[in-house]
Amino acid sequence: MPIHGGDLYRNQVNLDFSVNVNPLGVPQTVKNAMTQAVETSDRYPDIIAEKLINTVSSTYAISPEYLLFGNGSSELFMAVVHGIKPKKTVIPVPSFYGYEYAVGASDSEIVYYKTTPENNFGLTSAFLTVLSENVELLFLANPNNPTGNTIDRKSLKRLLDYCKDKNIYVVLDECFIEFCDGDYSMLSEIEMYHNLLLVRAFTKIFSIPGVRLGYLVCSNRELLHKIKRHIPEWNLSCFAQAAGCVCCSVAAQTDFIKDTVTIVKKERQFLAGAFHQKGFQVFPSDANFILLYSKTPIYERLLAHGILIRDCSNFRGLCNGYYRIAVKSRAENEALLHAIGEA
Amino acid sequence: MPIHGGDLYRNQVNLDFSVNVNPLGVPQTVKNAMTQAVETSDRYPDIIAEKLINTVSSTYAISPEYLLFGNGSSELFMAVVHGIKPKKTVIPVPSFYGYEYAVGASDSEIVYYKTTPENNFGLTSAFLTVLSENVELLFLANPNNPTGNTIDRKSLKRLLDYCKDKNIYVVLDECFIEFCDGDYSMLSEIEMYHNLLLVRAFTKIFSIPGVRLGYLVCSNRELLHKIKRHIPEWNLSCFAQAAGCVCCSVAAQTDFIKDTVTIVKKERQFLAGAFHQKGFQVFPSDANFILLYSKTPIYERLLAHGILIRDCSNFRGLCNGYYRIAVKSRAENEALLHAIGEA
Repeated sequence: MPIHGGDLYRNQVNLDFSVNVNPLGVPQTVKNAMTQAVETSDRYPDIIAEKLINTVSSTYAISPEYLLFGNGSSELFMAVVHGIKPKKTVIPVPSFYGYEYAVGASDSEIVYYKTTPENNFGLTSAFLTVLSENVELLFLANPNNPTGNTIDRKSLKRLLDYCKDKNIYVVLDECFIEFCDGDYSMLSEIEMYHNLLLVRAFTKIFSIPGVRLGYLVCSNRELLHKIKRHIPEWNLSCFAQAAGCVCCSVAAQTDFIKDTVTIVKKERQFLAGAFHQKGFQVFPSDANFILLYSKTPIYERLLAHGILIRDCSNFRGLCNGYYRIAVKSRAENEALLHAIGEA
Repeated sequence: MPIHGGDLYRNQVNLDFSVNVNPLGVPQTVKNAMTQAVETSDRYPDIIAEKLINTVSSTYAISPEYLLFGNGSSELFMAVVHGIKPKKTVIPVPSFYGYEYAVGASDSEIVYYKTTPENNFGLTSAFLTVLSENVELLFLANPNNPTGNTIDRKSLKRLLDYCKDKNIYVVLDECFIEFCDGDYSMLSEIEMYHNLLLVRAFTKIFSIPGVRLGYLVCSNRELLHKIKRHIPEWNLSCFAQAAGCVCCSVAAQTDFIKDTVTIVKKERQFLAGAFHQKGFQVFPSDANFILLYSKTPIYERLLAHGILIRDCSNFRGLCNGYYRIAVKSRAENEALLHAIGEA
């Protein structure tokens, strides 16, 4: 079994529920921008990504000096680790494997804090006890993956304050935040926390994981400079730069994000209700995916129907029986439920 | 002045002689592959790049286990430095700034070995004296950039043997080698040198710097594994993977490379002769670019004509008066010469 979802390359897949991209797909204007970018592939991409930085800056009201772009968030996670060189890192689990992978490129000790199904995999106040001596870096995701749960603003700010006091840098991964109904983002607090490294991506909300584009927001310019030193030159392709600029236009000038939130919420409720009715344990989610628990194995049976879901048994902190399902369109969700019924 | 050439983004440029890509441009089939890849941008790219690895392996007769792909060579240089963590690195200069940039991300001491115009910037036997105690890494380019000079097989093998004895890893950058008339590549020797890290790219020969794709060849699997640990997951976009596969077809099934070598040789001789006649000092080159020296400043004057060349005064080991000119098509080369005459 692969360590990540989305392995369409070694499976016969008609429907991919293993990867959590927007059910609305890639906006046509973004596709057009990439098609046009083919004609610019014979030039070096802008090494300072001036247009992209300015566009993201104005779209999301972020100082351009706080921005650092990556060839996907995965490049940023690794650069953060190389830049900070933490002695000790805390990662609550279950969570995205990419944090562990990035930290593994350094000599950092890693402390995994195990959240439990009894608490819907949420962080409790007991979590603070692991943020002790020598911890220099914490990875958090809001909403978390694969659980889909969110941390409310108040709790998150309390946690960030605590970490600030203890000189702990916090990577806060918001790559799924635009799917949530409600304002969970810490973007507006970026000036308040010099220990905060906010990671955001175009990958999920604009359905372009093939393009590779994410960005880091940090008001601590000395820290940002240290991290940037580990980003290779020309890391952003002509396709990433062109697509990123048009994604900003879509976000600012259309109802794409609003429509996404509406559809995701409706379909998530539909799927959660249906799975619950079928006897699955369904964990609460604010994201565009749902974590399920089932005593009956379903991964192989669905794959036989050409449907790929995320078997979560290899997530640190989970075990056999956990599955993550993307929220897709009604027709696709119905096809999944139909196949579950047959399987 | 920018640290690299190709800054089309902050200059008014009609003709770019500052970047050394193939005058034949991007093969149409490669463009088509990228256009088709737009439709795959909504999926994660293959995390193990299986098709690309197998295609490059069979095209260039390289064991797939010796291959590591990068989001451009620049990503590979940095991963090499992070993987080896050298105490001391030697870089002959003038050479590509990217080596220095990559090594600068580590704590390595850097020794710059200055080659001289009297020796056409070639390495002499005196070079061996700097490969002394504690040197763990050497960056070399064949042909070298910005000088265009090559190291012959015999000398290069002698140097690699010497480094092997001294436990010095050698990054040999062959990103321009396919423009050379003659077999200078160490690809066939890769089994012989466990200290050799061969870097090759699709960027220059297929004119796709916007796409970001390079690869490392190394028969020392333990070393390769160490380096790979510093490459982020999903580092290759869907565009890079699609383009890379078709580049291999073009290399294997068409006369593209052969035609390129013929044209580049002819146009290089044409340009070199013309510049010599105009009183410039012209350094011998086997590559698709030429290093010139001129007492009269020409950068700004050409830019006023919409022509960008590479002012090499900020290359370590060079000074005011050095310029690098790409070898382009006859019509473009004539336009450059015409503008030089007017300037």
